Amino acid sequence: MSPLNETHDPNLRSWVASAQAAGCEFPLQNLPFAVFRRRGQGEAFRGGVAIGDQIVDLAALSRAAVFEGAAGEAIRAAAQDKLNALMALGPDAWSALRLALSRALREGSAQQGALQACLVPLQEAEYDVPARIGDYTDFYTSVHHATNIGKQFRPDNPLLPNYKWVPIGYHGRASSIVTSGQAFRRPMGQTLAPGAAQPQLTPSKRLDIELELGVFIGPANAIGEPIAIEQAEAHVFGIVLLNDWSARDIQAWEYQPLGPFLSKNFASTISPWVVTLEALAPYRVPFSRAEGDPQPLPYLDSADNRQAGSLDIQLEVLLQTARMRETGQAPASICRTSYRHAYWTVAQMVAHHTVNGCNLQPGDLLGSGTLSGPTLDQAGALIELTEGGKKPLQLPGGDSRAFLEDGDTVILRGWCEKPGAARIGFGDCTGTVLAN
Amino acid sequence: MSPLNETHDPNLRSWVASAQAAGCEFPLQNLPFAVFRRRGQGEAFRGGVAIGDQIVDLAALSRAAVFEGAAGEAIRAAAQDKLNALMALGPDAWSALRLALSRALREGSAQQGALQACLVPLQEAEYDVPARIGDYTDFYTSVHHATNIGKQFRPDNPLLPNYKWVPIGYHGRASSIVTSGQAFRRPMGQTLAPGAAQPQLTPSKRLDIELELGVFIGPANAIGEPIAIEQAEAHVFGIVLLNDWSARDIQAWEYQPLGPFLSKNFASTISPWVVTLEALAPYRVPFSRAEGDPQPLPYLDSADNRQAGSLDIQLEVLLQTARMRETGQAPASICRTSYRHAYWTVAQMVAHHTVNGCNLQPGDLLGSGTLSGPTLDQAGALIELTEGGKKPLQLPGGDSRAFLEDGDTVILRGWCEKPGAARIGFGDCTGTVLAN
Repeated sequence: MSPLNETHDPNLRSWVASAQAAGCEFPLQNLPFAVFRRRGQGEAFRGGVAIGDQIVDLAALSRAAVFEGAAGEAIRAAAQDKLNALMALGPDAWSALRLALSRALREGSAQQGALQACLVPLQEAEYDVPARIGDYTDFYTSVHHATNIGKQFRPDNPLLPNYKWVPIGYHGRASSIVTSGQAFRRPMGQTLAPGAAQPQLTPSKRLDIELELGVFIGPANAIGEPIAIEQAEAHVFGIVLLNDWSARDIQAWEYQPLGPFLSKNFASTISPWVVTLEALAPYRVPFSRAEGDPQPLPYLDSADNRQAGSLDIQLEVLLQTARMRETGQAPASICRTSYRHAYWTVAQMVAHHTVNGCNLQPGDLLGSGTLSGPTLDQAGALIELTEGGKKPLQLPGGDSRAFLEDGDTVILRGWCEKPGAARIGFGDCTGTVLAN
Repeated sequence: MSPLNETHDPNLRSWVASAQAAGCEFPLQNLPFAVFRRRGQGEAFRGGVAIGDQIVDLAALSRAAVFEGAAGEAIRAAAQDKLNALMALGPDAWSALRLALSRALREGSAQQGALQACLVPLQEAEYDVPARIGDYTDFYTSVHHATNIGKQFRPDNPLLPNYKWVPIGYHGRASSIVTSGQAFRRPMGQTLAPGAAQPQLTPSKRLDIELELGVFIGPANAIGEPIAIEQAEAHVFGIVLLNDWSARDIQAWEYQPLGPFLSKNFASTISPWVVTLEALAPYRVPFSRAEGDPQPLPYLDSADNRQAGSLDIQLEVLLQTARMRETGQAPASICRTSYRHAYWTVAQMVAHHTVNGCNLQPGDLLGSGTLSGPTLDQAGALIELTEGGKKPLQLPGGDSRAFLEDGDTVILRGWCEKPGAARIGFGDCTGTVLAN
């Protein structure tokens, strides 16, 4: 568990003035990583760190050889076109790099000149998926989501008996994970219309969002060697926003007995900036169970996890229809919640995933599952917000939505804030539905 | 669909004499691909093609520059430490390489000397997984397996209503796919003992096999662009044997509602030699539906698929306990079946997987699911063969098995044979269970 250190000091100021701007998502206390290049220049992707409205180009910084030791080694790993090598280095290297960058970007740093030469404006950048994702696993850590959606798929049996014992997860599709800003085509699929005797192949009529966080794995474990919960966070690099688009009508017909497949694997969108676990340290909160819930089995329990295993990450979903966009209407907020409501923590996901000896690898992605909070306006999917499509959302300007329509843009936002700590943000995670 | 050509002629003879030996799995008509190196020499892995009891070292052959044109390009791609680049080239390149190798290895070839210099004895080789597997998807194509196992998990509802319409599949774990010969540790996991009020973490007590075939994908499709069934086989490189080890007690407790996870992802074993679809061309058989079964929806139906979409690959499972091994007792056959009984074909798996726009990539692996045949002695898993463990198998020498015990070795074998065609084999797919 990362303790607080000088990099978290809310009074730190950067010589990149925009890092102190009101509402800035990337102050000096954040320092998230992405792979980026300047649009339209024919450049290669390489690692970058966000500061204010700028990106520190880590390939340029590596060539400039400003940092030595562990930080220098980490910079060289981060200069590549994917961050897998950086992720593989582990917490000591990540911390050394964070500290070196924090000091070099502070007001009065002697390294200002060298760093200044490596800055690229955020607005010139485009992004790639930050790692070669070997495997993508999606969990189901919101008991509220599991209950809400369970009611619709299994009215008589919403929350299955294993839920409060097992951090339920399943494997997802890595190839179709895309970065924020990419549009995708509404999926075709088999669906069974109510009362129909046989299925048809049609474009999905119940296309939905899933508000999730994605956890990027750091150092690997060897096959056959579980990761104990006490060591779990040393295998976690950082966190992104994740929209796990879902076709509910395809899902309802295909998901038994082996789980969701084509209803999910046509596209998943992640935000480009990976916020490190160390940056999130001020926002840890106790992990707790409600009255009457069982305590986790020993392999899912630790003092650190109980004391500070959860993360208070604020989350919001916004929707903008094509008509809203054309008429200059801003995206409308349709959900606000926090990651702190999750029933299982990041450390519990890692410990559970590996308890059977399954090997995680640098760059693997773990999804949190839809992060619905305790009340229905905190639900992270339209199927919950609209009660299965029966109560469409009313949007500013007169549009209403039961599920997504062609041209709709969905934006996920995430941030952390509290008195006595710097506000840090994740940047947007945006996707637009195209007609099929 | 690969038509028959001169490479399939059963009368072809190689100057590698062992290719004509009785029972040889790798005659001139087979020419499967692997990545290999000589054991204990500190060598790099590289592509190889099996012929008789020898391997043509494709890195050496690439350096020797014996082949020109498309075959030469394919050789250069196959010289790498994974076959993804070869897989990406597509059927024309694969066919050109097969034809060039077939001619060069025939009796009387002018290239005998050049090829001879590139041979490595099979018995000196060790193998790696043949491709960097980006995503692994497991299907469920045996209606007999689905029915048999459905009876045990859902006695009142064994075959779900979607089965005969949807080629059911789910995502599996790519990182824990290992090659034949590797032992693995019995997995730990949460299980709920009969009548127990809460689960426990224990080593699996119901460790099982799954007899499957694995399909390696060739050229990619772009995200959002489905592969029509008529083009599906142009995206398939070849086939391996696959043992998808399964912990039935972990599976029973975890699998609802999102499918199997830790019960499967601790290890899956594949045979090292990829038999190409072109090599399998003589063994195509019509795809047919039983009386009363629905015809496939149009996107899963084509004239080629009806006429010759299925493959008559003979399959066998053998089991050798530690005691049998120590007393010199040969492995015992516990199942014999054929892939021709599958309810869905390779082309249907590819067409279904991509109908929603999901992108396949070179080196992706599709599992067939457990290939149980119509009768119980043709079942590809112990849970079926022993009726859920109630009727243990009696093995030669006195051992009996309901599920796998520590020290057990399981061997999958696959081959094709019929009058008028050369017999071709897959080589063994072997794994041994270690104690936890």
